[in-house]
This record gives sequence, C-alpha cells and structure tokens, in this order.
Amino acid sequence: MSVYDELKPLFSPKTIAVIGASEKEGSLGRAIMNNLLSIKFPGKIYPINVKGDTCFGLKMYRSVLDVDGKIDLAIIIIPARAVPTVLEECVKKGVKSAIIISAGFSETGEEGKKLEEKVLSIAREGNIRVLGPNCLGIYNPRSKIDLIFNPPDRQQKPGPGKIAFLSQSGAFGAAILDFMAEENIGISSFVSYGNAMDITESTLLEYFAEDPETSVITMYIEGVKDGRAFVEVAKRVVPKKPIIVLKAGRTEAGARAAKSHTGSLAGADAVYDAAFRQLGIIRAISMDDLFIKAKALSLQPPAKGDRIAIVTNGGGVGVMASDAIELEGMKVAELSSETIKKLKEVLPPHASPYNPIDILGDADYIRYSNATKLALSDPNVDGVIVLIIPQSPALEHQKLVESLVDIIKSQEKPVTIAIPGGDISKRVSEEFEKHEIPTYKTPEDAVMAMKALVLYGYALKKYGLL
Amino acid sequence: MSVYDELKPLFSPKTIAVIGASEKEGSLGRAIMNNLLSIKFPGKIYPINVKGDTCFGLKMYRSVLDVDGKIDLAIIIIPARAVPTVLEECVKKGVKSAIIISAGFSETGEEGKKLEEKVLSIAREGNIRVLGPNCLGIYNPRSKIDLIFNPPDRQQKPGPGKIAFLSQSGAFGAAILDFMAEENIGISSFVSYGNAMDITESTLLEYFAEDPETSVITMYIEGVKDGRAFVEVAKRVVPKKPIIVLKAGRTEAGARAAKSHTGSLAGADAVYDAAFRQLGIIRAISMDDLFIKAKALSLQPPAKGDRIAIVTNGGGVGVMASDAIELEGMKVAELSSETIKKLKEVLPPHASPYNPIDILGDADYIRYSNATKLALSDPNVDGVIVLIIPQSPALEHQKLVESLVDIIKSQEKPVTIAIPGGDISKRVSEEFEKHEIPTYKTPEDAVMAMKALVLYGYALKKYGLL
Repeated sequence: MSVYDELKPLFSPKTIAVIGASEKEGSLGRAIMNNLLSIKFPGKIYPINVKGDTCFGLKMYRSVLDVDGKIDLAIIIIPARAVPTVLEECVKKGVKSAIIISAGFSETGEEGKKLEEKVLSIAREGNIRVLGPNCLGIYNPRSKIDLIFNPPDRQQKPGPGKIAFLSQSGAFGAAILDFMAEENIGISSFVSYGNAMDITESTLLEYFAEDPETSVITMYIEGVKDGRAFVEVAKRVVPKKPIIVLKAGRTEAGARAAKSHTGSLAGADAVYDAAFRQLGIIRAISMDDLFIKAKALSLQPPAKGDRIAIVTNGGGVGVMASDAIELEGMKVAELSSETIKKLKEVLPPHASPYNPIDILGDADYIRYSNATKLALSDPNVDGVIVLIIPQSPALEHQKLVESLVDIIKSQEKPVTIAIPGGDISKRVSEEFEKHEIPTYKTPEDAVMAMKALVLYGYALKKYGLL
Repeated sequence: MSVYDELKPLFSPKTIAVIGASEKEGSLGRAIMNNLLSIKFPGKIYPINVKGDTCFGLKMYRSVLDVDGKIDLAIIIIPARAVPTVLEECVKKGVKSAIIISAGFSETGEEGKKLEEKVLSIAREGNIRVLGPNCLGIYNPRSKIDLIFNPPDRQQKPGPGKIAFLSQSGAFGAAILDFMAEENIGISSFVSYGNAMDITESTLLEYFAEDPETSVITMYIEGVKDGRAFVEVAKRVVPKKPIIVLKAGRTEAGARAAKSHTGSLAGADAVYDAAFRQLGIIRAISMDDLFIKAKALSLQPPAKGDRIAIVTNGGGVGVMASDAIELEGMKVAELSSETIKKLKEVLPPHASPYNPIDILGDADYIRYSNATKLALSDPNVDGVIVLIIPQSPALEHQKLVESLVDIIKSQEKPVTIAIPGGDISKRVSEEFEKHEIPTYKTPEDAVMAMKALVLYGYALKKYGLL
C-alpha cells in the first residue's frame, strides 16, 4: 500500500474515535469534541471515555472495542501511561490510523523514551500509522478535521487553499495558522507531527506529493528524524511539487536552542544547506519569507532563468527592487534593443525605457499594460516584477487590475507585484489576488517571491523537467 | 539665525500663501487648498492666482504683494517658467519661506538646471529659505500643514508622533505615509525635499535635531547633495537623536537605477556605508526594517551592549530569535549562574532556565513576569526580547500586559516584543504599544528592533555619552 493510501484515513477519515472525549470545562477532551462539532465534521464521531454515558449528545463508549462500525482515525488525548493499552485496543479493533496528542514521551527523558518505543512497537506490529505523540495534530478545512484546541477567540484558522504546512513545533504552528487566516492565505493541511515516532516529515512529504489538494509543501523544522529517508523522498517529491523549508538552528546559538527544544541536532546546518541545494528544496530565512515564497509558488509558474525586469511608477521603489534583485543573486535584465525602442514609442520622454522601466508617477493603466507586455515578451527577460504606487491620482485601479491580469495570464513567464502603502494597497492587492496574481507590500518582498520562482525553475532544470 | 529658527516658518507657519490656488476640478491648486481646509490649518490662508476673485470662499489675491498681512510660507504650484517672477515678489513681500512643488527644473536637463540656478540665486539674495523644487512638500499633523495632494480615498496619513521622515523620493514618500497610517505609527513631520536646491537633507537634519516634537529621524535617500556638509551635521545630530537611513542604490544595478531616478551618484555605496558607521548613523536594509528600527528607537532606551536574553512560551520562536541575534552580529547572552538558579526555582522542571529561557507552552503571566524580571536584572544581559505565542489558552493577556509593562518601565534596559499570529496578536500588541512598548509580528523583527537599540548604544558610546 502506498504512503498516500496509508495516510488517507488520517487526513480524510469517515469515522473518528475521540479517546479521552469529555464535557469537562477546560479539558482537552472537551476542546477537541467542540472543534470537531464546530467545524461540522461530516462523518461519524465516537466519543470514547471509560466513564461512558454521553458526550455533547453523542453516545459515549468505554472503549473502541464497544463501537460497532469501522474507525478510520483514533485521536488519543489520555495520559501517556494509558496510551499503550488504548492503542492495543485500537489495533484489535482494526482502527486504521491514530494521532497521539498526549505529551510525556521521549521529550521528557529516558522513561518517556521507553514508553514511546513500546507504543511504536504496538503500532508497527498492529499495522496502524500513528502521528505524534506530543503534537497538536491536524487541521484540514476540506475534510473538516480540526484538532487545534486553542480557544476560538484567540486562534483563527485559514480557509481551504493549496499550501500544506508541516511543523515540528506545535506552538509555532498554531501561531502560523492564525497568521495565515489573517493574511488570507489558504491551506490544504496543517500537520504538527511532534516526536515523529512513526510518521516522520519524510512520510508526510510522500503523502503531500500525491495529495491533489496540495500544490506547495512548506515546513518548519529544527532537524529531520532520518536524513537518508528525507533525501530519498525529497528527490521524488521536488520534481512534482516545490518544498519550502524554514529550518531553524542555523547558527551556533540557534542550534543550542534547538537541541534544548526538540532535541534536534541542528549543529550540522551547513550539511542541511548543502542537501537542500542539491535536492532543489527552497530554504526560507524567516517566517515572513516562508509565506512570501509559498504564495508565489502556489500561484505562478517557475522562471526559466534569473533575468528580471521591473516596471514601476515610482523611481525609488525601482531602485530598491534593483538592489534586492542583485543582493538575492539574480540579474536586473538587460532589455533587448528592440524592447527599448518599442518602450520609447509608448512612453513619455522623461520615462526610462531601460530596466527598471520607470513609467513615471503620472502613469495610467495603459502605460502599465504597454510596459508590462513589452517586458514580458523580451527574450532577455525571465520574469517581471510590477511595482505600483497606488496612491497616485492618475491610476484607474480597476482597469489596471483587469489589463495586467489579462496580460499576465496570456503568457508563461512569472510575475510578482508589490503595492506599498496602507489601506488602498490592501484593496488593490486583493483584486490582483482574486485573479491569483501574488501581491506583496514591499519591493523587497516581491523580489523574494520572484527568487522562489527562479529557484524552483533551477530545481526543475536539474531534474530535466524545464 | 539658527537653521531651526530659519525653518520654523516653513514647518509651523501662522500664515500661508498658496500661489496657484484654484477651484478647478483636477488641478493641483484645488487639491492643496482642499487639503489645508480639510486638515483645518489654524492660521490664515491667502489663495493667490492672477485670475483674482475668490477660492473656496476666501478672497483670492493676484499677487502676494496685494496681501496686507505677513506671510510665513508661500506654497508655489505654478508652471516652472513663472516661478522666478513669483519668487521675486515673495522676496519683495518679505515672505519667510517657500515650498516649490512645481517640477520642470534640474531634473529635466540643461535648460531646467539654468532655471533652477536662477531661482536659487533669487532665494539666496532675498534671504528666503526654499524647499524643493520638484517635491511633494510637507505633511505635519501638529501644525496642520498637508500638501500631499493624492486623493483622500487612496492616501491615508498618520497621526502625530515622534518620528520625522525625510524622503528624496516623492512617490515612495506618499506610500510610506499611507503605510504609517495603516500601521498606527505616528509622525512628527514628513518632508519630500525634491531637488534640494536650497534646503538639503543636511539642513533638514539640523532642523529636526532641535525640533522638540521629533525623537527619531528617518530618511530615504539615494545620495546626498553635499557629502561634507552631511558629515558635519550628522556629527552634531547623532548625539542628540538617532538617525536611521534607508539608502537605496546599494548594488551596481541599484546605483544605475538611482542615477536615472534622482541623478544621485550612488555608486560609492561602500563610502556611504563606512561614513554611516563612523558617524553612528543606523542603516536600514528595507522599507520594513526602517520602521521596525524607528519604532524601537522612538520608544525604548539604547542598549549598553549586545548580550540579549530571550523569554518565550514557544520553543520554535526561541530558536528563530537565537538564529537572528547571531546573524545580526549580536550575542545570545550567557546568563549568570545566579539567574539560572533563580529561574530553576520559579519555573517548572521541563522549562529551560538557560537562554533562550523557554517557559513552556502552558506558561501563565506569572511565569512571564518572573522570567522577564530575572533576565533584566542579570548583569550579563543588555536587552531582553520577549516572545509570546498568544494563542495559548494559559495566558491571561490583560494581566500579562500589565505585569510586563510594570517590570519594563521600572528599569533601564531595552525590551522588544514579538507576538506572532493574526488577529489576537494585533490586539495584544496594541495593548503593549499603548504603554509604549514596541511590539512586532515575528521573532526576526523583534531582533532587528533590538539591533537598532544596540547600534544607537554603540553610537552614544562613541560620542562618550553612554
């Protein structure tokens, strides 16, 4: 059975047992029952608790063995010590997958480590795939699984989208979900995998490579469980979908902190870096950068090279973007003489027909369309960054969006956009993003986004696919 | 007369003449009259236009010479060619200062350059200080001058604050104002100085060094008009107030773009960089970074060294902050054995009493207070970064804010805070910022902010002031 088929019951279960379900105020069992009911999980939920009775109006069972129907996924939220017995019952019942949210395993020392090994051997012998322990579990807005138990008034969650996010850190993962919701970035699945006892980051990569809802895989890691497996899997995944990794523990101080946090040996960061490069995995340098790059890769095609043209109605932002392109190791494209000639024909005398193409502060949407079209059709250009100062009275925003979207969608080179400012910038950006054009707040961010498209282009070339 | 006294009529005029005032739809004269009336400029406004009659109900004069009262500031928005005559009339009238918004001067070539020289000699002989030409002019929410003529539905403007912003680029400056408004960052004055014919960035630095409303001076430049003057002025200003510069044209490509944009010879970026270091001017690397640093410097004291402690309820963000501290050339502080001992006493067994101090995901406000207080009182620590995952159900946000604010305000080391996430993060951040504690969205941003406080500490030490 493929990893995708093995993990399907975990990500898209039809029936869930909540082992440790409860109505008790402040309990994890209550929070998770609440979540599944609020998100309207469409399948069957079996609350399990030795206390029996009912839970939120549902019949409560003493054990999974008392349940009549099949169980795709068991969510385990009971104290660590009781987990082996319960997992054995799951095996006996034929439960297909489990998520152990409970902490108190290898992260706590020797005794916990032994307990984790025991649980793992039960899972392996019983042929049941297990996520965790010591994790937040899964959030999936399409199959309507939500195990993120923070109070709803302080934890927003994003809607469905094409980006998967795998997090070695639980708390940070929750903050990221909240951030994605606020920024309107959709998600395919969020996975906090905790101690990665059975299902590791490599298993998850293999799953998401096949998941039709996911087009970009993002990860927060401090280290990987099994380097060799990771390399093997990544080689198969990168040609299918871009992987973007925020790996913390880049410095000596960070590596020390990571060791104390997840026990990861992050010391060999240079080894990771070389491996990522070799494999075509894209490395993000910060939380912001991770989503700048993910948005670009989920919406735009990879670039065939690194020669970038800039179209701008603000000279200053054009200079900043030029700086950023060169600092990121890309090239400010040298436009062909034919493009320059044509630009001179359509632009006013004081405009700059060289790159950055400065169409001046009084540019209207027609000047933007002409310049962007010419830049995109230049054989010396692999991608175009459009910079818009939207405060200018000369711009008809709606027409600008319509004409640029038409131009961008009618060809195959990638485009990223930056619209600096406040409220008006947000409004115009939203219009572009409705048409799946990735839009950012600063010239530097639009350049980081383009960098991701250039890097994925390199990766595909390496695999002979571009 | 000091530069401060010379420029006071420009920044805080009691009477303004708007030369080129108009009611004509779409005209600059109308937009600027509208702005001054909307912001409720409290002094007297004299609309000037050869067409005479009235303008928005105010008597319109044919010339400043027809006005009876004194005029502090003339705003000139007539075609370039007509500027010399009008400026001569201003001199004759004894107008104290002028802003020439009109373009068509040295930025357009030889002829324009001659015109600018003529205008400059009139100003110098007539003893009138002139901002511009080819600029957006001034926005000052306290003296209620607003010359930023973009339509109000696409241009927000920030409220009063302590940060001055000087911009060589007009369009970018407008975007920055819009951005500051959205981010709730107050401003003392915004100045777009255009061709810097008379009043240069150095003149402005000298003014803002004395301006009681300004505590931090920020600048966007592509080059300076007179390097020697800039160095001399900066030496006097930095000991009084921090200067943060976003200088574009850092790379070869950027320098080429800057030359075509403002004619600045940005090629010598390494020279600028060395001069900034020598003078204690803080360099920002992006638009975001400029305001990250400005906010920190406007609210927190400089650090006496670069040994930084981290307090966090999320292990992952602690690792990221450690990385960023080391990458920024600062040190993750080694806590004293006494601090470690005391931390062990107040923290639960699995918490980390080393730096980063990981007080765990279930930390309440008391754990935060204890850890922050101990970190701040450690003699090996020069500044503290507090990281808060606010989604955690264990945190009482209001009590957390109150207790941390008390602790931070009762001592003299700087603190910056990062609260990653979405809506809840914004809400908690606003509470901290009400008490003037600078708060950011990512661990990396809080580190960049702390870096500014460390750099200004170095600068003050260099001048023998810390």
